[in-house]
Parts: sequence; C-alpha cells; structure tokens
Amino acid sequence: MNAIKDSVHDWIPLDPVAGDLIDTPAVQRLRHVKQLSTVQLVYPSANHTRFEHSLGVYHLADRALESLGVDEPQAQTVRAAALLHDIGHGPYGHQTEEIIRRETGRDHDEIGELLIETELAGVLEAHDIAPDQVAALVRGEGELGQLVSGELDVDRMDYLVRDAHHTGVPYGTIDHGRLVHDLRFVDGQLVLTEGNVQTAESLLLARALMDGIVYRHHVSRIAGKMLERAAERLLAADISVDQFRRMADHDLLVALCERVSDLGERIERRDLYKRATWAGLETVPDALTELSRADERQAAREIADRAGVPREHVLVDVPDRPRLKEARTRVVVGGVVQRLEEASKLVGALRDTRRAGWRLGVYAPADKTAAVGRAAEEILGLA
Amino acid sequence: MNAIKDSVHDWIPLDPVAGDLIDTPAVQRLRHVKQLSTVQLVYPSANHTRFEHSLGVYHLADRALESLGVDEPQAQTVRAAALLHDIGHGPYGHQTEEIIRRETGRDHDEIGELLIETELAGVLEAHDIAPDQVAALVRGEGELGQLVSGELDVDRMDYLVRDAHHTGVPYGTIDHGRLVHDLRFVDGQLVLTEGNVQTAESLLLARALMDGIVYRHHVSRIAGKMLERAAERLLAADISVDQFRRMADHDLLVALCERVSDLGERIERRDLYKRATWAGLETVPDALTELSRADERQAAREIADRAGVPREHVLVDVPDRPRLKEARTRVVVGGVVQRLEEASKLVGALRDTRRAGWRLGVYAPADKTAAVGRAAEEILGLA
Amino acid sequence: MNAIKDSVHDWIPLDPVAGDLIDTPAVQRLRHVKQLSTVQLVYPSANHTRFEHSLGVYHLADRALESLGVDEPQAQTVRAAALLHDIGHGPYGHQTEEIIRRETGRDHDEIGELLIETELAGVLEAHDIAPDQVAALVRGEGELGQLVSGELDVDRMDYLVRDAHHTGVPYGTIDHGRLVHDLRFVDGQLVLTEGNVQTAESLLLARALMDGIVYRHHVSRIAGKMLERAAERLLAADISVDQFRRMADHDLLVALCERVSDLGERIERRDLYKRATWAGLETVPDALTELSRADERQAAREIADRAGVPREHVLVDVPDRPRLKEARTRVVVGGVVQRLEEASKLVGALRDTRRAGWRLGVYAPADKTAAVGRAAEEILGLA
Amino acid sequence: MNAIKDSVHDWIPLDPVAGDLIDTPAVQRLRHVKQLSTVQLVYPSANHTRFEHSLGVYHLADRALESLGVDEPQAQTVRAAALLHDIGHGPYGHQTEEIIRRETGRDHDEIGELLIETELAGVLEAHDIAPDQVAALVRGEGELGQLVSGELDVDRMDYLVRDAHHTGVPYGTIDHGRLVHDLRFVDGQLVLTEGNVQTAESLLLARALMDGIVYRHHVSRIAGKMLERAAERLLAADISVDQFRRMADHDLLVALCERVSDLGERIERRDLYKRATWAGLETVPDALTELSRADERQAAREIADRAGVPREHVLVDVPDRPRLKEARTRVVVGGVVQRLEEASKLVGALRDTRRAGWRLGVYAPADKTAAVGRAAEEILGLA
Repeated sequence: MNAIKDSVHDWIPLDPVAGDLIDTPAVQRLRHVKQLSTVQLVYPSANHTRFEHSLGVYHLADRALESLGVDEPQAQTVRAAALLHDIGHGPYGHQTEEIIRRETGRDHDEIGELLIETELAGVLEAHDIAPDQVAALVRGEGELGQLVSGELDVDRMDYLVRDAHHTGVPYGTIDHGRLVHDLRFVDGQLVLTEGNVQTAESLLLARALMDGIVYRHHVSRIAGKMLERAAERLLAADISVDQFRRMADHDLLVALCERVSDLGERIERRDLYKRATWAGLETVPDALTELSRADERQAAREIADRAGVPREHVLVDVPDRPRLKEARTRVVVGGVVQRLEEASKLVGALRDTRRAGWRLGVYAPADKTAAVGRAAEEILGLA
Repeated sequence: MNAIKDSVHDWIPLDPVAGDLIDTPAVQRLRHVKQLSTVQLVYPSANHTRFEHSLGVYHLADRALESLGVDEPQAQTVRAAALLHDIGHGPYGHQTEEIIRRETGRDHDEIGELLIETELAGVLEAHDIAPDQVAALVRGEGELGQLVSGELDVDRMDYLVRDAHHTGVPYGTIDHGRLVHDLRFVDGQLVLTEGNVQTAESLLLARALMDGIVYRHHVSRIAGKMLERAAERLLAADISVDQFRRMADHDLLVALCERVSDLGERIERRDLYKRATWAGLETVPDALTELSRADERQAAREIADRAGVPREHVLVDVPDRPRLKEARTRVVVGGVVQRLEEASKLVGALRDTRRAGWRLGVYAPADKTAAVGRAAEEILGLA
Repeated sequence: MNAIKDSVHDWIPLDPVAGDLIDTPAVQRLRHVKQLSTVQLVYPSANHTRFEHSLGVYHLADRALESLGVDEPQAQTVRAAALLHDIGHGPYGHQTEEIIRRETGRDHDEIGELLIETELAGVLEAHDIAPDQVAALVRGEGELGQLVSGELDVDRMDYLVRDAHHTGVPYGTIDHGRLVHDLRFVDGQLVLTEGNVQTAESLLLARALMDGIVYRHHVSRIAGKMLERAAERLLAADISVDQFRRMADHDLLVALCERVSDLGERIERRDLYKRATWAGLETVPDALTELSRADERQAAREIADRAGVPREHVLVDVPDRPRLKEARTRVVVGGVVQRLEEASKLVGALRDTRRAGWRLGVYAPADKTAAVGRAAEEILGLA
Repeated sequence: MNAIKDSVHDWIPLDPVAGDLIDTPAVQRLRHVKQLSTVQLVYPSANHTRFEHSLGVYHLADRALESLGVDEPQAQTVRAAALLHDIGHGPYGHQTEEIIRRETGRDHDEIGELLIETELAGVLEAHDIAPDQVAALVRGEGELGQLVSGELDVDRMDYLVRDAHHTGVPYGTIDHGRLVHDLRFVDGQLVLTEGNVQTAESLLLARALMDGIVYRHHVSRIAGKMLERAAERLLAADISVDQFRRMADHDLLVALCERVSDLGERIERRDLYKRATWAGLETVPDALTELSRADERQAAREIADRAGVPREHVLVDVPDRPRLKEARTRVVVGGVVQRLEEASKLVGALRDTRRAGWRLGVYAPADKTAAVGRAAEEILGLA
C-alpha cells in the first residue's frame, strides 16, 4: 500500500487506481491550481491546492463508502470520481469558471470530454472502470453520485476544514467523523441518520461563516474581478479557450503579466483596485441584480466615460444572488426523511443572512474611486 | 493597528513600517516563492510561501524584542530586518541559491544592494531607518543581528513549526513561547537562560527529525537537482542572472517549460528521475565529497557516455557535508554561558546521525537507472 | 516573571497579584472542581477544571485590557476579578449552583463574603486592591465589570474554546484574537467595533452548537439531576450548606458514596438512570415549564407512587426556559451601537432553535422506565 | 456500532466486547484515576484519566491489528487486553505502584487475579474470551503481547500524544499513522519495516523530552513523594492494601486529608515541600543510588534528627537508575532486524542524557530546607 501525508487527514492510503491516476499530467496539474485562488491575497497562508483537496475528497469518499457498506468494484469507481472531480477546473479555479462556461458552454464538472481527450480514460479502462460512469458520478448522477456532488457530498466536507486549516480562520471546523459515519441511503437518497439535525446545521453554519469571512471577502472579490477581466482580455487577444482552460495558475499569471500587463502586474504585486461603491440588495434596483457579464462590462464603460477615466479602470461586480444548496440536505427526523430547511429553524435565517451579505461592487484604482463612485451611483441608480 | 491572519501564529499585528514594506513589489514577490520549493512534490500540502514565513519571523522578532526589553526605535529596525531577511532569495528559494551565488558572488542574505536597487530603501528612510543597518542585521552582524541570523534566530523558530503545520509531519513542534521568553543577552551574546539545555536540545532535535523526513527527502532532492540543472541551462542560454534572481516560482517554471522543456515539463508533471545509485559517506571516496558543481557536471557527462545515454539524462548530486549550526547555541548552565555542544550529550550523536544520513546520489530517467547506476559506480569508484 | 503552561493559551504570564492569589487554598480548590461536571460521563476527555479555566479567563482579560488601553493599577484589579470569578462555585460547579442558591440565597458570583471570610481579602489588600471592588467586578458591575461578566465577557471566550479542546467536539472554535482585539468602550458600553456582526454571531453559534451537543446532552443531564438529588439528600441529612459549598468534587463524590450510596455509587460507576419520558415545549403544558425544584420533587413522588416504584427511583427534570444572553451583545453597525438581536437575522432563529431543544425529562433506573414513563405521562398530562 | 468521542483520536468505534467491558465498575473506576497523577500540579491542564487513555490504547491496537492482518477472534482478545491493560493501577497510578508491589508482591500489570475477582471475567467469557489469555497479553507474553506491552506497544504511542495534548507541552508529537502502519512481525518479533530508524528514534526522543520537561519535573516528583509517604502512613494505620488498591484518586485524597492530614492537606492545597538538596549521579556515592524505600525512610529519619526537625518533615527521594526500554525497539535495516540501539547513534547519547537528568532529592517544608539540606549532605555524604 502506498500512502500520502496530508496536513488535514494525516496519512491517506491510495488504492492502485488512485496511484495510477495521480501520476497523470491531468491530475498533477492540480498541484498548480490554488484551492482558493485570490483569497491568498487576504489570508497569506491560503496557498493550498486542488491537488491536496482532491486527495482529501478521495479519502473522505473512501471512509463514507465503508460506512455505507458499498463494496468493490463499485467503490473504486466512486473513489476515482472523487479524486478526479476537479480536473475540469481552469487556472485559478472558480475564478475562471464563468469565462470557460461562456466560451465553451461547459461546466467544470462536465469532464466527460476531458477524460476522453486525456490519458485518464486509458488509466481508468486499464482498471476496468468506465470513464463515462466516472463522469456521471462527478455530475452527481445516480445514488452514489450524491456522495461526489450533492448537498451532503464529501467535497464540501473536505474544503471547509482544509480552508480553515490553511487560512487560520477557525470557523470551518466540522465533525468529519460523525458526518461520514452517519450517512445512509434511504429510498435511494443520501441522508443523515436520526439525531443529526444539528450535525447538518453545523455544516451549514460553517459554510455561512466561512462565506462571509473568507470566500466573499471584498479584497479577494476585487482581485478576482481583476483576474476575470484580465482573462477576458487575454482570450479576446490571442489565446484559444482550449489553451486557456489547460493552463495552471502559474501559466495564467505569467501570460497576464506579459500580455495584459496593466492588470496582470497589479495582481502579481497585490496592487489592487479599491471599492468605488458598494451596495446591498436593499439599495440596488432589482434589474441590476441580474446583470450578465456583458452587461457588467457595458455598465463599466459608461461609468468610466462619465467619470472621465480610462475604461479599463472601472470594474463592475454583480455576484449571483445567494443560494443555499445545503438547505436541501436530507436528515431523518422521527423516522421520516426531511429536507434540512423543513427541520431547522436556522435555514431561513441563514438565507436572510446571506442575502444581507450580498454586495454589488464597483472597483477602480485607488486614486479614481471618488470620481468613479459618483459616476457609478448615477449610472446604476443607487440611492 | 493593522493585523494579518496567519495559520501558525494567528493574528500578527503590523507596525507602520511593516505595513509600508509589505506593500512593495519586493516583499509581495515572496508570495510567489514557496518556502520548501520541491518538498511539495513529496508532501502535497507544503505550499506555504516565504511571504507568510517572513511575517512569522517578523512576529517572533517582535515578541523576542519585547522579552529582551529592546526599545523603539531600535526594535523597529530589527523587525524590519526580520521581515526583509528573505527578499534576496531567487525563485524556488534555497534551490537556486548556489547558482545565484556562483554567478553573482552574492548570498541571498547579502541584501544591501537589493535594498538600494529597489523601492525598499525609500520606504525605510521615510521611517528614519538606515537601509545599511537593516542589511547588517540580516547578515547577523551586531548584538541584535543574532536574533535575525544566528544559532538562536527567530527564522528557525518560525520555519520548523510552519513546515510541520503545512507538511503534516509532526516533528517540527517546538515551544515558541518558552524559547522567545527565555532569550537574554549576556556579554553581548544571545543565550537561553538557566534551565534551558533541553529547550535548546529540542530545537536541535526538531531540526534533525525534519531534516531526515522532510528537508532531505530523496524525491525532493531529485526534483531539486533537476531544477538546478534546468536553471543552469536556462542561464547558459538566454537569461541574465539579474533577470533570473528577480523571478518568482511561476516565472521560472514557465521559463523552464518553454526553454528547457525536457526537464521543465518533467518537473511540472512530477515525472522525475529516479535514483541510479545512492551511497553513504562510508562508501564514498573522500575526494568525492568535495566536488564542486562543475565537477558534478563533468562526472555526470562521463557517466552518461559510459552508460551510452544522452548526457542530459544523468545528474550527479553531492550535497555539502553536514553541519550542525545549532550546536553553537549558547545556554546558561550553572551561571556560566556554554555552547550547547559542551552542555549536551546529544549534540555529538546528532552530528553522527546527520553524517549517517548524508548520501551521494546519481539520478536518471526511470528506464535508464540500471545502466547509469553501473556506470556511476565504475566512474565514481563506489564499492 | 512567572508563567504557567496552558493547553489552550500556551504560556500564561502571571503578575505578582495573580502569583499570590493562586497560592491560596480558595483558588487551589478549583483544581478539584471540574469545569463540565457530569459532561465527562459523555465525553471522557472533558476533565478540565475551573482552575485552568480561571487562568484562561485571567489571560484573556489581560489581553483585552491591553487592547482597550486600560492602565495599571485598574487593570490588575480587573485581572484579579477574572482570576477569582469562579471561586464561589460549589462542588461540581453549575450542577450544585441552584441548591446553594436555595439554601443560602446567594449566587456563585456573589463572592463578597467569601473574599472576606478567606485569606483572599488579605492577599488583595497587600497589593492595595479593594476586595469589594473585585466582588463588584465579578458581579458585572461598572464599565469594566462587563469584561468579567456580561454578554461580551472573557469567561465565555475561554470556556467555548477550552471545552472544545477537551471534549474533542470541534464546534466551540471562535476567533479569540479578533474578539479581544476589537473590543471598545462606547459611552460606557462594551462593544465590538464596526465589521464584527459576524464575529458576534460566531460566538452565539459556537455557544448554540456546544449547547446542543455538549452542555445539554441528555446523559449529562440525567447524571446531573442524580447528583443534584443526591446532594439535596446529603444536605437534608447531616451536612451544613456551609460545609457543602466548600467541598471540592472529590469530597462530594466520597460523601455521596458513603451517605447517599444508592445514587452516589451509580454516579461513580456511571450506572445511570435512563429517560422514562422526554417531552418538548410544544407538548408540555405551560404551567409545567415553571416548576420549582420543590414542585419537581413533589411530581416525582406522585409518579413513583402511581408507578409503584420506590420514590427515590424517579427524577423529574424541568430545565429553565432557554435564554440567549449573547443576543444582547453590542456591535457597532454603520457607526451606531446596536444589540446583536437587532443587527443579526440569526438571533431569532437561534432563539427558536434553543426553544426546540428544550426538553422536560423524567428519569428512572433502566428496568423501571416503562412503568415510570406511563405514570409520568398521566401525572404530568403529557400528550 | 457504538463510538466514543476522544480529544486525541476523535471518534473511537467500540466493538461489542469493549462496549460491555466499559460498563463494568472496574473500567469505570479508571475515570477517577488521573493519567499523570501529580503532574497536574505543574501543568494544570493535565487532568486526563486512565479511562480515556485506555480507550486510546484500544483504538491504536485496533488499527495496528488491521495493519498487521490479525483476524477475529484473535483480534478482539488483543483489543480487550489493550482496553484493560491499566485496570491494575492503584489510586494516582504509577505513584502508588511501588507501595502496592511491596505490600502485595504484584505489579499493576499482573491483572490475572483482578480479572477473576471482578465481573470482568464473566464479561470476557460471555464473549468466548479466556481471561487468562487477556492477562498474558497484558503481561506482554506471546507474539501479540508485544503490541500491548513491549518496546513498540500502543500504550506508549497513545500516552505521548495524549500527555502532550493535555499538558500543552509540544514534545510528545509522534507520527501515529506511520508507526501503526509500518509494524510487522518478523520471526515472531514485532518490528518496524525498512526505512523507519528515524520513526523509532522519534518515539525515543519524544519520550526523552517529555521525561525531562513533564514526567520527572521536580515539583511533580516532590508532590509524588509526599503522596507516597502519606499513603505508606495510611496503610500502616488502618487500611488494608486490598482496600487501598481499589481506591480511586478521590477516595485516596479524601482519606489522606482525613487521616494523614499534615501531608494530605498540603497535597490538596499544593502547599508542597521544597528541595533541601538535589544531587546528580556524579556527586552521589554509588551505594546511595540503590536505596530501598525502607532505606530512604531510615535516611530521612537520621537527617531529621540531625537537623532537629520533626521526622515527618523530611523526605528522601532516590529514583530508579534510568533505563531506556525503547532502545530495544526492533527495526529492519537493510533487510536485517536490528535493535534500535544498534541502528541508531542517538540511543547511547539519550542514555547519557537520562543519566545526566537523574537526581537524588531531599525535600522539606519551605522554612526547613536550609537546616535539612545541610544535615542531608552530611548524612548522605554528598560533596
């Protein structure tokens, strides 16, 4: 048996399939894709990568499968899916997801084609694992797919604790052992057994606290928006989306510094734009909350013109309306399977809390924020 | 007050000098230089950077200065030196140190010119701090220089714990609080107060255990030698040492993949050479242990020719003979300042242990190790 | 300087007052009073004591005072109060609080008389600290009293993290550093500075999660009720309340085993009663939720008679209606001081959650639960 | 499956045998025996008990058995032995071991009679486990006995990490996962596989560091000697050794306070004797290092008479000469099984270090140490 030392789960034993998959360039590339992309500019220790996260998800899947009594060879297919669930990520992970989706029409977890294009299909087939079954699991399909991608998936169980360990923020601490141990299938649905409403709530709360303090920190969002805009300009100029999505973080950073140097070098040196305006849901006209990326760019151009600053100096950032996927977690209460949102008074309040945390942002270089802020409020009709 | 969250020391408050220094490109660049370079290929979680390490060293310096009763403005100069002590590092830190030294004649801690060349001098002067005083402290000069670079420096106190936290290897755990608290100056020498022989030993033991399990792991050494060789070829081809030493990890990795692609892509994909031979001090002729880098390359060429493989397929790795700097730590025993090597029976044994861990390595692609191994043993006269 | 090693806060430096106070029997006694009394019967690692907790509270008070800019000698008085805040606790802490209050009319934090009765007053006076000022701080009086006993006190900040460390339950993790650092006085009120609604929420959430999983675990509650009943019988028999409240855990356990041996030995051997019935607020008649301890005992007698079991085999446990003191935490939002319940959508939901977690319990030996359960439902009029 | 939450190993699943054994008074009693007895007087957080330690040893045994491929029902017998290995301990564990051995001629791990005397035998037999086989395993007999009591036993692997967690001293950190995973049987001997010399050294070093800083701390030794002397007086007066060895910590502390109150109350209040003299091996005549407990008491009487102080005010403490059991750990080096002392240069040095740490102590109340110290040096012939 082969094992890898992990800072979160200690030794992770690898089965032969995992051993072979890990040696492929497609999985090794994840060593060069940070788990939290621009969050590292706020929490300097947050340099962990999708590689170690993928190992962690593989490990928790293994433990959950044992607890659920899933036997080989089915289990090894699920573990392979857990290990590969993130290989579709472009450089800087979630930060370039939307760009890649727009340009290719594909999500990062639609990895079917990727598996076929790469040497991964061959490795899987050599172990009698069907690549399309792995791809289906990654998309969350089927009973066992819920374990890889769903409200109770092991992906979330890994990243909350890992992100807490590496940022130093204590809020992601959940009870892995109990979560993994108390999973069951009831009528084909993955649920937490009786007595676990609070366990499910704790997952939700950990996510909510990490969201506000880490994942949606405004400095990380500004850097993320700069990166997204720079990536769009890079793609518009001279790089195909196919080249782009195969890049790792270091490739993209070098390419941006060379070819979109105004934004690229700012990101590299953490010389970031600042908030010119910042508005919550209650002050933002409803129509604004649904802006497409093209609309954002159009609004940014108008604001720049009004403020008399170069167009590339204004970024408009309208995040998606907050969702709370974990609210759909299934728990057994009094012998009946319920959605957590039915069983827990907290879910509604967390929905409100997340709505209260939503912010539209307009960003500009530090010396332009006053002018840009005024222009933005006029153009966007903010109070 | 401004503060940064750190995964090891929790919140680190920043003084105004540190706040300004951190915003310079020279310090921000350290975000892109991994603390343990190729160790990440063995311990996947070890992606922490010289940036967060520098903050940690700054923080421990601050606490040590308070404990030693060093007042402002002297203290802020020492803290600035602690924060800047690693800015002279090239890409991949220690891994390119020897190359840069050879080409420039300068060590990574000879940062005087760097300070003057960059905006750092200006920032320091704006706070009435003399850049050459900072440079002297980084070189370990003067009473307070011992705190920044010496047997009892805060550099080592930070990296042992940080490397343990991020690799997941438990051996680097030392007692920061006690070490920092029990520092004193006796006749201008930095010492640990009475009753701390074991505290000093624990520092030495942590270092010795981390050395064997982490810092000198053979896979990391192979990758490191590949990187060094690739960097030499890059420098030989078309890059000046001045450009080179300003690179960050991502710049170098992209440059190697583009211009020394046989080695560069192997490093990127962790498709590493393997050990063809591996020999301890007792079987290696004395003369061999003193080989210069040029000698190593010459031996590699001869081995390759003898084995009938391309010359770039053989790497010879002769590490420096083991030293044990920490043996010189000063402790007070019975009221008298002694060197730890006088006060502790362990020091001699650790010296022997480190000698026993020394290995000459010859590395080659996996399918060439048999032939290269035989040739190496002949050429190098190994038993 | 003297310092003590703590498993939670590492080294805690002691000022001379604390050094002297710690050497008194009144403080040493806290070494023998467990922080979580009967919780140890559910979480076997939870053996930490009020002694180490008191040191932790002292330490956080010290850091908060520094952050608030409170100078000596005022600061040392507050630190003394922090160190002494729990000396009024009887054996098994909170578990005997109600008994002692009933018998003496005094709360555990009404320590004024205790200070005067013991050698503590002398120690304080020798350092020019007025004992009645310390007592007032422990009661939460005055501006600085809020730090010792109030919604934002350092007591809670210590116990959440300490209880998590020692039980192994991860939910008590809060961000000490930030909490202590962002305290301010605004118009004489202790508040958290701007941007800390979520920090305050996290304290509330940590408390809510620990409450359900640790503090109100039904097994700990059963043991607690057995202990309380046994203590009442001990007091009724041959021990004065004055002797009683001076006991430490070991004294009480031995006394119960000797003199109330049916319950005492069961507690010692963890041979506990079981739930005969267990009812939430929605099924319990309103009048029942306000039962006094005397009413509980009366109901238990009636249930026992109806079930035909010895009276000492039935325990009725009606906890206080849930309160949420932390809801009153003051935070600055948009420059205005608000109560957390005004600023956070979560508070209402947590109130509901705590109400949903409230349970009336009737307990009996394992072989009597069926009969006692039926009788209890009839007598108490439960659905 | 039933599981218990542990602060060190997280959730520990219990097999049915363990579930039943735990419910016996003999095992529950371990909840009331501190793991580190008087160490808690130096490190206030060190209140963990032999109960949680026994669970930890059970858990590591389970993992080691899985790694070694030991099947049921043999495995459950070993796990039962692991769980029960400490039930022979008297109150305050190691501190009363010598007294009990003297009075009964039995060691704490000669638990055969204990098993038969208690309900444990019945529980084991109900699960088809032979009590005498369990007793043999606890004594370290047979191949699998090495896992329970030997140089590489899981007892040591648990207590080092547990003691570190609860004292806050960082030195006990070892790599459980690797130790448990790399155990093998070679010719009936338990060994660590190839490549683990350093893993074995780390265990030895952790032990050595904890020894000096925690286990043999002079304050804990003084309290321990006071406790031992008080226990001897209690036994001499009115308690049988059979009653004595069944006591838990709280029973003994109350009995001492009542019946040997001069020493008992001092221990309870941490009002300890101080060192009157303190001498290393090099200054102590050889004959002195072999004193029996009776000799110690005789010497104490002579010293007291010479110093003119009451006889109960002098304690003489001559610890056993240091041994280094872990030096006998078997490791595979170059395919050959060796003792660690043959494979590691460190072992000899650690032997010397432990010898250097040996101290003869004479203790007395603080106001008597001068007189007692002079008398002791004369009587004992110390330089």
